[in-house]
Amino acid sequence: MFKEILAQDAARIQAQFDLVLSALDELDVTRAMAYTTQGGKRLRGFLVMESARMYGIDATQAIWPAVGIEALHAYSLVHDDLPCMDDDDLRRGRPTVHVKWDEGTAVMAGDALQTLAFELCTRPEVGNAEIRAELALTLAKASGAQGMVLGQALDMAAETAAAPLTLEQITTLQAGKTGALIEWSACAGARLAQADPEPLRQYAQALGLAFQIADDILDVEGDAEKAGKRLQKDAEAGKATFVSLLGLNAAKSRAVELVDQACAALDGYGAKAETLKDAARFVIARDS
Amino acid sequence: MFKEILAQDAARIQAQFDLVLSALDELDVTRAMAYTTQGGKRLRGFLVMESARMYGIDATQAIWPAVGIEALHAYSLVHDDLPCMDDDDLRRGRPTVHVKWDEGTAVMAGDALQTLAFELCTRPEVGNAEIRAELALTLAKASGAQGMVLGQALDMAAETAAAPLTLEQITTLQAGKTGALIEWSACAGARLAQADPEPLRQYAQALGLAFQIADDILDVEGDAEKAGKRLQKDAEAGKATFVSLLGLNAAKSRAVELVDQACAALDGYGAKAETLKDAARFVIARDS
Repeated sequence: MFKEILAQDAARIQAQFDLVLSALDELDVTRAMAYTTQGGKRLRGFLVMESARMYGIDATQAIWPAVGIEALHAYSLVHDDLPCMDDDDLRRGRPTVHVKWDEGTAVMAGDALQTLAFELCTRPEVGNAEIRAELALTLAKASGAQGMVLGQALDMAAETAAAPLTLEQITTLQAGKTGALIEWSACAGARLAQADPEPLRQYAQALGLAFQIADDILDVEGDAEKAGKRLQKDAEAGKATFVSLLGLNAAKSRAVELVDQACAALDGYGAKAETLKDAARFVIARDS
Repeated sequence: MFKEILAQDAARIQAQFDLVLSALDELDVTRAMAYTTQGGKRLRGFLVMESARMYGIDATQAIWPAVGIEALHAYSLVHDDLPCMDDDDLRRGRPTVHVKWDEGTAVMAGDALQTLAFELCTRPEVGNAEIRAELALTLAKASGAQGMVLGQALDMAAETAAAPLTLEQITTLQAGKTGALIEWSACAGARLAQADPEPLRQYAQALGLAFQIADDILDVEGDAEKAGKRLQKDAEAGKATFVSLLGLNAAKSRAVELVDQACAALDGYGAKAETLKDAARFVIARDS
């Protein structure tokens, strides 16, 4: 059930992206924006759509922040892949933007994708002005120097640090780098309904951490072809990960524990929360 | 009078920046954010503050979008200075961020400054939710792939184009690259007052173009020390500018004409518009 809904939401998000991006002038930078917003799991967009459904919010509302968060995620990938950041030449099985075009195009495409995220969240089609302003403000807090960029900066600093990070430091780093956007996505449904996002926040915090632990496990055990990117990078770089700190088995147990916690946070919603619970279980069972 | 008001607004904007940025964790990326938001003319922030004053909006409201637009402008400078973009090592007389730190820090600091701009425009202190959502949406339109980034992309494309740009193409390029943010800044006062921004838009469109023509004149006639950056770059690069296309004298006349147009657009506001008119006159008389 979850996989079908994820696939439907992903298709809907892609169609909306195509529509939005086709309105832009044809230039390398806009071609690169379209290229980089193709594919991907769309987990963040799904979390927006599904948490909105749980509150009875129509998909014609939820689609805008869903595409917005995927635009923001895409910007973070394009900039993260740059030679001066993670220096990756492959993403989702295809050349990264700075390889296919050039670094300047990658910088500008990422910049414009970030801007697009805020535009999509504040479009007149979304709920009312209270909701639009709240979505934009919380997205800014989740993605800036107190959220995602803080996580990236801690990650960069760790590369030149004398000692590997501790478990506490890695948890803080990941709460910013991947956790903040996952949290925003899951809370979006409550925000669209002007309801209390607290249960969804608890769900998403456990989910985000489980997601990252699963990523670290995939980096060690995964198949590079299925993942569509280079693996074993962290071990080669001597970086501390949840797997290097906890060991493979304890990391797997911790991920299962976190998924149980995530599911428990949604018990108050009853059967309506089943798809979000399935999503949490999927996150640690995926192979890419 | 205008110069005193500009100086007062600049000091107020700087104090607010210091306050906002001091709340962030101390890291290279946040140090770079603070570094790059020091100094500058603060013309955009002034336009927000002054257009708001014209509508009787308190400075405690206007300061947020004023600092926001300066954060967005600062992001554009940090990314523009990168080796893969304009490759500048000097800005406002000091080493650029990627020279003082490194390219990764410059990418992340710029990214987080863009995010900060949207955060500041949507903070609860600003007007009401209608105003916050409208400021964020219009800022996104002005700065993304239909505004500033479009201008930057056209500028990059021009560097490898077979023929130099025409006057019409340069005008389009500059309307995006510098005009869109100047327009947003001048219209912000009307938006804070929930009034029609049309007269301010006309003022700003003429002002923005005059500003760019003055920049091209400074690039030819200016003093690199006063400007705090490398000059004669465009001529060396063989790039078309308003000066290369119109000639120096015609460019100067056109700038004067545009300033007259800008001032005329504000006649309906009476004496309250004097400072904005002075600002327009200053833009073509400045030496940096």
